[in-house]
Amino acid sequence: MKFNYVEGKKGDKAEKEEKTEKIEKNTKKGAASEKQAKEEKVYIIPLGGMEEVGKNMTAFQYKDEIVIVDAGLTFPEDEHLGIDVIIPDFTYLENNKDKIKSLLLTHGHEDHIGAIPYLFQKLGSTDITIYGGKLTLELAKAKFEKKDAVIPKMKVVKGRTKLKLSKYFSVEFISVTHSIADCYAICIKTPAGIIVHSGDFKVDLTPVDGEGFDFARLAQLGEEGVDLLLSDSTNAAIPGFTPSEKSVGESLREEFGKAKGRIIIAAFASHIHRLQQIVDIAQIYNRKIAIDGRSMVKVFDIASRLGYLKFPKNMIVDLHKSDKLPPEKAIILCTGTQGEPLAALSRIANGTHKYISLREGDTVIISATPIPGNEKAVYKNINHLLKKNANVVFEKVVGIHVSGHGCQEEQKIMLSLVKPKFFMPVHGEYMMLKKHKELAVATGVESDNVILAENGNKIELTKSHCRVAGKVQSGMTLIDGFGIGDVGNIVLKDRQNLADDGIVIITVSQYKNGKFNKQIELVTRGFIYNRESENLILETKELIKLELESIETKEIKEISKVKQLLKSKVGEFLYKKTNREPIILPIIMEV
Amino acid sequence: MKFNYVEGKKGDKAEKEEKTEKIEKNTKKGAASEKQAKEEKVYIIPLGGMEEVGKNMTAFQYKDEIVIVDAGLTFPEDEHLGIDVIIPDFTYLENNKDKIKSLLLTHGHEDHIGAIPYLFQKLGSTDITIYGGKLTLELAKAKFEKKDAVIPKMKVVKGRTKLKLSKYFSVEFISVTHSIADCYAICIKTPAGIIVHSGDFKVDLTPVDGEGFDFARLAQLGEEGVDLLLSDSTNAAIPGFTPSEKSVGESLREEFGKAKGRIIIAAFASHIHRLQQIVDIAQIYNRKIAIDGRSMVKVFDIASRLGYLKFPKNMIVDLHKSDKLPPEKAIILCTGTQGEPLAALSRIANGTHKYISLREGDTVIISATPIPGNEKAVYKNINHLLKKNANVVFEKVVGIHVSGHGCQEEQKIMLSLVKPKFFMPVHGEYMMLKKHKELAVATGVESDNVILAENGNKIELTKSHCRVAGKVQSGMTLIDGFGIGDVGNIVLKDRQNLADDGIVIITVSQYKNGKFNKQIELVTRGFIYNRESENLILETKELIKLELESIETKEIKEISKVKQLLKSKVGEFLYKKTNREPIILPIIMEV
Repeated sequence: MKFNYVEGKKGDKAEKEEKTEKIEKNTKKGAASEKQAKEEKVYIIPLGGMEEVGKNMTAFQYKDEIVIVDAGLTFPEDEHLGIDVIIPDFTYLENNKDKIKSLLLTHGHEDHIGAIPYLFQKLGSTDITIYGGKLTLELAKAKFEKKDAVIPKMKVVKGRTKLKLSKYFSVEFISVTHSIADCYAICIKTPAGIIVHSGDFKVDLTPVDGEGFDFARLAQLGEEGVDLLLSDSTNAAIPGFTPSEKSVGESLREEFGKAKGRIIIAAFASHIHRLQQIVDIAQIYNRKIAIDGRSMVKVFDIASRLGYLKFPKNMIVDLHKSDKLPPEKAIILCTGTQGEPLAALSRIANGTHKYISLREGDTVIISATPIPGNEKAVYKNINHLLKKNANVVFEKVVGIHVSGHGCQEEQKIMLSLVKPKFFMPVHGEYMMLKKHKELAVATGVESDNVILAENGNKIELTKSHCRVAGKVQSGMTLIDGFGIGDVGNIVLKDRQNLADDGIVIITVSQYKNGKFNKQIELVTRGFIYNRESENLILETKELIKLELESIETKEIKEISKVKQLLKSKVGEFLYKKTNREPIILPIIMEV
Repeated sequence: MKFNYVEGKKGDKAEKEEKTEKIEKNTKKGAASEKQAKEEKVYIIPLGGMEEVGKNMTAFQYKDEIVIVDAGLTFPEDEHLGIDVIIPDFTYLENNKDKIKSLLLTHGHEDHIGAIPYLFQKLGSTDITIYGGKLTLELAKAKFEKKDAVIPKMKVVKGRTKLKLSKYFSVEFISVTHSIADCYAICIKTPAGIIVHSGDFKVDLTPVDGEGFDFARLAQLGEEGVDLLLSDSTNAAIPGFTPSEKSVGESLREEFGKAKGRIIIAAFASHIHRLQQIVDIAQIYNRKIAIDGRSMVKVFDIASRLGYLKFPKNMIVDLHKSDKLPPEKAIILCTGTQGEPLAALSRIANGTHKYISLREGDTVIISATPIPGNEKAVYKNINHLLKKNANVVFEKVVGIHVSGHGCQEEQKIMLSLVKPKFFMPVHGEYMMLKKHKELAVATGVESDNVILAENGNKIELTKSHCRVAGKVQSGMTLIDGFGIGDVGNIVLKDRQNLADDGIVIITVSQYKNGKFNKQIELVTRGFIYNRESENLILETKELIKLELESIETKEIKEISKVKQLLKSKVGEFLYKKTNREPIILPIIMEV
């Protein structure tokens, strides 16, 4: 086998446990089959979503069969200069391509489906089938448009859909509530054990639509005996219960009622329940809606076509015609809750929007909380909007947004229903995973039975133990433009250096006799503004000339040595003069 | 005069007001002198701190005299690639250098004193005197060390110090409470009106040390009649009262009591009250302290020398010897509350610290809240610390940090004491300034008498009106290394482009006869990793060769035209291949 496989150390605790009888009482089978089951092993391999928020992806492997749950992306942080999106490292899956049977999707958010086209591009032609809810598959399908790739086989599932995927794998989809329709937990049955993956969830007792949170089926599975639960840790640090999405509807209704002029409301395009509520309340107030923002338009199209978003056709007006509506009859529904510089709301706030300019009396509602890291951008928009005399309703105003993820009490409900023997918190920073462990222990899972895993860990589950048993290659693949994987650390390091102090390019011609033409070209970008710093440029050229003369005198021949000398001399000089360290790039042309 | 001065429109409201008698009842003088006072005008010119948090600086001008309050810096945001700090644009002051009489400092935080050495560097030799508290001046003095400049004249003030600064300006310093010793509000008296500048403040009724909040003097001034109040808006959006710094001491005492092993505590170096409390509690628990972080060491030195930080000499141990202390007797007091990558706490968290490596049983206390924009970096540290099994006490735990700025009730106290006729909220984003206006109106200031100003506004105050009457040059000066002002928009734009997609440098030699040497040098940085993309490099060279041949055929002579052709052809080609837009830089060497 080609893949990186590092055999991990057996944990002392796990070994001890194998010898104890403690586990016996947790299994439902007799002593004979118990012994046999002990031999059976299934591996859980998280490739994303551990100690991070985003790019969720987990592989489940039994013998030569692999089933994948989700293939999400994440968005770059400040240090990922110029990167568009980040996906999991697929090396392990590439190297085990022939084993992969199916890709199961819990729901249609980017952090669960965004990496799918890259995965299939990387795997090449396969006959892996994708299973997921109707909306989820439609959103996944739309991702292939741009990649002119063959769209994989897809099969729609519903709550309680049971499937035999392969010789060893059977799965069942169980409906849960979240902030998009068609969300499922997945129960994975293998000869080595039964695993439940919660997907993203909250316990919304009054969901806006959909099949609801299937307490009964989860409880039934719990009664039958679940070996391992993987559960969403996003809000593990937040006590209590996440309010129902319906409560947002009530607050929005109140805000809509107060608004005298136009309403400009920003929401996550993927939050179809929120969109439905906005549409419903718009009808109550007899307002028409103009939709703005590429992703918002796309989701509106898909969701309304599939019947996930219901509204009378005539209530949608063209954006460029929205100006003709009386203000008290108009809503602009747009993207930009996170202060993304090019999103509709930011363009409205900046005054650079093609069709919408703010007027006195406009009410702007930002129906989402800033994701950590986005606060400054969001507040920048709010300041701009306030300066233009809009009435801005945001964050601090109670009730215009609720999380799609359950808080501590809901996580305890999941744990109490499924009653797993082993528990592995997923989807969250280390802080959250650790907190989720505490919650699991509080609901009765033994502390030694909780696994705090990392991406790339190969976790071995048998009837008697669950432990990290090895490691596969994992990490981030940075996507910039079309390429996969060719923006690595070197390119990123260069971008960081370029961004910090710019680049100085020295071009020199060398004759065949080893002498240099003393006409030196010196070009800078991102270092100093040359027109204001002519002297520094002249002094640097003078320095280079002297250095070249010294090189000629010393009869230094190797180009690499010449480059090195120029680099260090010029670097030192410029640092002394400016206290900056641009990249120094000497180019020697042989003529 | 040379400076940029744009005459603003007279506001309708202000004009109307001049004609009404409404204002009469607010002045204490008779009709005759009232008439004369109407002629007198003093200008308030904020050069920083309006619609932003940081780089606070305000100039006050009466006839040919200028007095400045504070000269602060701010830290760069994401888009300011490679920039170290940001200071106000000093153009207006440079152009009016001879008018400047004094620089008054409210307190010693970076956002109030950080730009002082740059200001004096820019103004050249002057005999401007700086006035401020003892600690403030000592911190300001320390800033000149690196600049090998002449340290300006400095004079120490205390609470209720009254000074006649010049023919027209008299000032008085009034003690307020904040998060550093020696904080003052400043009352500025001119023939045109009496102005109070609050400085940064909270109303701490049980301050850790210092002169306390001087209710009596502020109230007295209010009784005598204050024309204009400028007041700190930082927490204007937060209802209620900021708890006393003393309350933090109580929580810290509790946390110290619970800690079994070492305590590693991060705090703002400038927060001397917090440091004093930490030192005091350390003594109670009989622990010794090792100090870590350049700014922490510096502040400890200055503050203890001046008597602002009191502790027995033998309680401080060398950092590299701290390992020899029994864990239950050791405290590491360090910088890094904001997750700054090179700060002591981050190095401890990453495991890259020279002397301190985390051990089981360590308690890490982060005694500050993340400033918006720093959340991700702070949480990254917390995750690392938790993974190393430290007990981490942070943010969410009540009481280990309080703000140094007053909330709404305290801002109302300031307004109620000073009872200004006109009000101008300062120090804050637009959102905060606007909220502060509401508070002022709630305490009795007339809505039309509140000025929401911008940096560079020239605000005219007379006995009868206060309004924006013009504009001077203002903005940000970006400091990178030694230079002042030479990193402008062009350099920054280049850095952004370099950071996004890197640079591709094409070097070609041209013979005197106009023909090109087809040996093309192609170098990239931050674009692709060449070794992995050899084909793309070869294809690009081929394209360039064809383009050069076509240029030869067409007998195109101008170098600029050749460069333009190469730039656009190569740019298009690479975009098609990679969907990226690197900077394309053609260099033609004439040989």
